[in-house]
Amino acid sequence: MQQFDAIWINANIATMTDNGTAYGSIENGALAVKDGVIAFVGSKADLPPFDALATPLYDAAGQWLLPGFIDCHTHLVYAGNRSNEFEMRLNGASYQDIAAAGGGIKATVAATRAASHADLFVLAKDRLNTLLAQGVTTVEIKSGYGLDLASEQKILEVAAELDKHHPATVQKTFLGAHALPPEYANDADGYIAAVCQMLPQLHALKLVDAVDVFCESIGFSPEQSRQVFSAARALGLPVKAHAEQLSNLGGSALVAEFGGLSADHIEFLDEAGVAAMAKAGTVAVLLPGAFYFLRETRLPPITLLRQYQVPMAVATDLNPGTSPLCSLPLMLNMACTLFRLTPEEALLGVTRHAAKALGLTDRGTLAVGQRADFACYAISRPAELCYQFGVNSLKQLIINGKEINHRR
Amino acid sequence: MQQFDAIWINANIATMTDNGTAYGSIENGALAVKDGVIAFVGSKADLPPFDALATPLYDAAGQWLLPGFIDCHTHLVYAGNRSNEFEMRLNGASYQDIAAAGGGIKATVAATRAASHADLFVLAKDRLNTLLAQGVTTVEIKSGYGLDLASEQKILEVAAELDKHHPATVQKTFLGAHALPPEYANDADGYIAAVCQMLPQLHALKLVDAVDVFCESIGFSPEQSRQVFSAARALGLPVKAHAEQLSNLGGSALVAEFGGLSADHIEFLDEAGVAAMAKAGTVAVLLPGAFYFLRETRLPPITLLRQYQVPMAVATDLNPGTSPLCSLPLMLNMACTLFRLTPEEALLGVTRHAAKALGLTDRGTLAVGQRADFACYAISRPAELCYQFGVNSLKQLIINGKEINHRR
Ligand SMILES: [Zn+2]
Ligand SMILES: [Zn+2]
Repeated sequence: MQQFDAIWINANIATMTDNGTAYGSIENGALAVKDGVIAFVGSKADLPPFDALATPLYDAAGQWLLPGFIDCHTHLVYAGNRSNEFEMRLNGASYQDIAAAGGGIKATVAATRAASHADLFVLAKDRLNTLLAQGVTTVEIKSGYGLDLASEQKILEVAAELDKHHPATVQKTFLGAHALPPEYANDADGYIAAVCQMLPQLHALKLVDAVDVFCESIGFSPEQSRQVFSAARALGLPVKAHAEQLSNLGGSALVAEFGGLSADHIEFLDEAGVAAMAKAGTVAVLLPGAFYFLRETRLPPITLLRQYQVPMAVATDLNPGTSPLCSLPLMLNMACTLFRLTPEEALLGVTRHAAKALGLTDRGTLAVGQRADFACYAISRPAELCYQFGVNSLKQLIINGKEINHRR
Repeated sequence: MQQFDAIWINANIATMTDNGTAYGSIENGALAVKDGVIAFVGSKADLPPFDALATPLYDAAGQWLLPGFIDCHTHLVYAGNRSNEFEMRLNGASYQDIAAAGGGIKATVAATRAASHADLFVLAKDRLNTLLAQGVTTVEIKSGYGLDLASEQKILEVAAELDKHHPATVQKTFLGAHALPPEYANDADGYIAAVCQMLPQLHALKLVDAVDVFCESIGFSPEQSRQVFSAARALGLPVKAHAEQLSNLGGSALVAEFGGLSADHIEFLDEAGVAAMAKAGTVAVLLPGAFYFLRETRLPPITLLRQYQVPMAVATDLNPGTSPLCSLPLMLNMACTLFRLTPEEALLGVTRHAAKALGLTDRGTLAVGQRADFACYAISRPAELCYQFGVNSLKQLIINGKEINHRR
C-alpha cells in the first residue's frame, strides 16, 4: 500500500502540463502528496491503494486545483509611496514640477535608503501576504531602490528573510542597474563599474539568484547592460532585463545572447529580438499593469511571440512608480483584456512559464515529483480566474504539501 | 456632559464636505457617534466634555477616516458567468459564434431565471461581502436579468433581503428595460408596455427605489425610455438611465427632463446634454470598469462636466457581461488612470456624489447629523486610496455607528 500525506479527490485539475488538453486538464481527478511533493496526479480510478484510515482525504467536490501562482517580476521591497506625484500629475503638474518636488524614483530610493530593515520587512510582508491570499506561492523580488551596496544589501536581506519566514518562496534578483543614484549623477559608466563591484559581494552573501538591468534610453545602454551581464556570467548567475519598454535598443537580444531567463516589458521588441529569444529559450515576461498605469498604447508583439513559440509569462511588476498594483489576478484579467492573451496563455503565464522565467523546474505544473504548491478554487472553469475579478474564489492553499492560512 | 456612544480621536478626517480644504479635511480631528449618527466631527480641541469612563474611545493614531463608500451602479444579483464567451472571443470566435453558443445577456437572463431565490442570495451576498471588505457601506442593485414579472421580482426581493440581513444598505432599482426578452423578440414596444405594467406591481411590493432604462441603439429608444419614465413619475419614483455609452441618443437630457437622479456611462454625451444635466442637478455616473473591459476609446466629457459643475460619481457597474469587476477601489484607480479624474474627484465620486446619485441625503459626507457610516484607513493621505491597489488599508469599518467585521 502506498503512503501519502494527504489526498484530494473529486477535483478538476488544471495541471498546466502539455498533456494535449486545454490547461492540461484532468476531470474528476485525484492528487496525492508525500513529503511536500506531488506523489500522484491523475484520474481517481488510477489512484493506487492507500491507507484510508491514516490518510487525510479532501473532497474537492468538483472545484478546480491549479498550481500555486508565480509572480516572476516584482519590486515589492520599498518604502514610501508616490501618491503625492500621482495626485500632482492629475492636478496638472508638469514632470518638472514633480521632479522639483522630489518625485520619481529618487523619492523611492530616498525613502528606501532611510527605512529600517524592520520597517521594510513589515511593508514587504503586507504585500507578500496580499499576493498569498490570491494564490501566489512563489514571488521574485528585485532590489534596485538602494543603488549603493549597503542599501541594495538591505533590500536583498529583507527578501531573504521573507523567503525564510514566510510560506511563499522568494527568488532574489539584484537590480543594481535600475537607475542612476545621486552619487553618480552624469556618470553612468562609473555607476555600472560600481554595480559590477557590488555584485560579487552580494553574491558571496548568498543574496543573489539572478541579475537584472534596466536597459532603456532613460536607463542603461546595451553596452552598460553587457558589462553587468558579463559580471553575472563570471559568477555563474542567470540574467534578465527590463527591455524594449519604451524603445527598441536590443536589450532582449542581449539577454538571449547570454542565455538569459527573461526579457520583460518588451512592447517595442522586433522580430529579430523575438527570434533570438526563441533560440535561447528566453521567456517573454508581459507586464500589463505597467502598460495600463502608464497608459501605453504600443502592445507587445504577441502574434510574433506565438509564432516563434516564445513562452509568455505574466507578472505584476509591483512597484511604487509604474505599477502600484498588488494583484496577480488583476494581471490575468489585464493580460486578456489589454493584451488579448487567451485565458490559457494568461494562466500558463503565472504558472509554467513563470517558473521557467525564474529558472525553476520544480514547480509551475501539477505533475509527479513537482513541489506540492497548489490551490483549490470554487470555479466552474479555469477561464473564470481571468474573466472575473474581485470575489476571491480561492478556497484552500497548499504550499510544500501543507495547508496554509492564506487569509492573513 | 454630552453623551456619545463612541469617540474616535487623533484621526485625520476626510469629511468630503465643502469646507474649503481638499477632501474637506480635518487634521488631527475627532469624531463622535450617538444613536447611529455622527454627533460631533471637528478638531479634538472642540470636542465637548464627555464621560471618559463610560465612552469607548478609539485612537486612530493618525490614520484617516472617510465616509463609507457608496457603489451607486451595480447589477450584482445574477447567476452564471460569462467566462465561456470571454474565452471564446479571445480564441477568435465571432459574435455570431458566441450568439450561436447561447452567449451574451441571454445567457445571464436564462441562468438568473433558472436560479433559485436562495442560490441568487448566496451569489449576491458573496459579492456584497467583497465590496464591504473594501469599505463599501451602501450599494445600489438593479434588476434587469429577469425581464418578466416573476424573475424581476425575484431579483428585487433578493436585493431587499440583502438590505435586511446584511450590514450594508441596499438601494433597489427596477431595470426592466434592460434588454428584450425572448418572449418579445422584435417587439420592443410590446415589451415596454409590459415593463410599464410590471412597475406598479413591483412598487406595490415596496421593491422599487428608482427606475432605470438602457437607452441605446442596442437597447431602447428615447421614446420608449420616456414611456418608462412617465410610468415612474406617475408613481413618484425617481429615474435614471444607462445613456450615451455607445452613441448619443439624448438619453441623459431625457433623464434631466424628468429631474432624474443620474445618467450613467455617458461617453458620447454632448455639451447640450451636460448643460441639461447641470440644470436638473442630475449626477454623471462614470463607469471606468466597463470602459476598460470593453476596450472603449471614447472618454466621457470630463472637461465639460467640470465646466458645468455636474457632480461626477464613480461606480463598478458590476455585471457579468461588461464589468465582471467586483472592486470599487479598482474603479478609483481606473477613474484616475483612464479618465484622468483627480483623486479628490474620484473619492467624491464614491462618497458625496454617489449619495446624490442615489438621492440619499443622510450619507456620503462626515458631518453632524449624517449616518455614522465610515471607515478608518492606514494611509498617509487620501490619494493613496486611488493611487495604489491590492493591499487593503482598511482597518476599521463602522456602519450605523457600530463596528462591523468586514473581513467576512
Ligand atoms: Zn520592473
Ligand atoms: Zn450598468
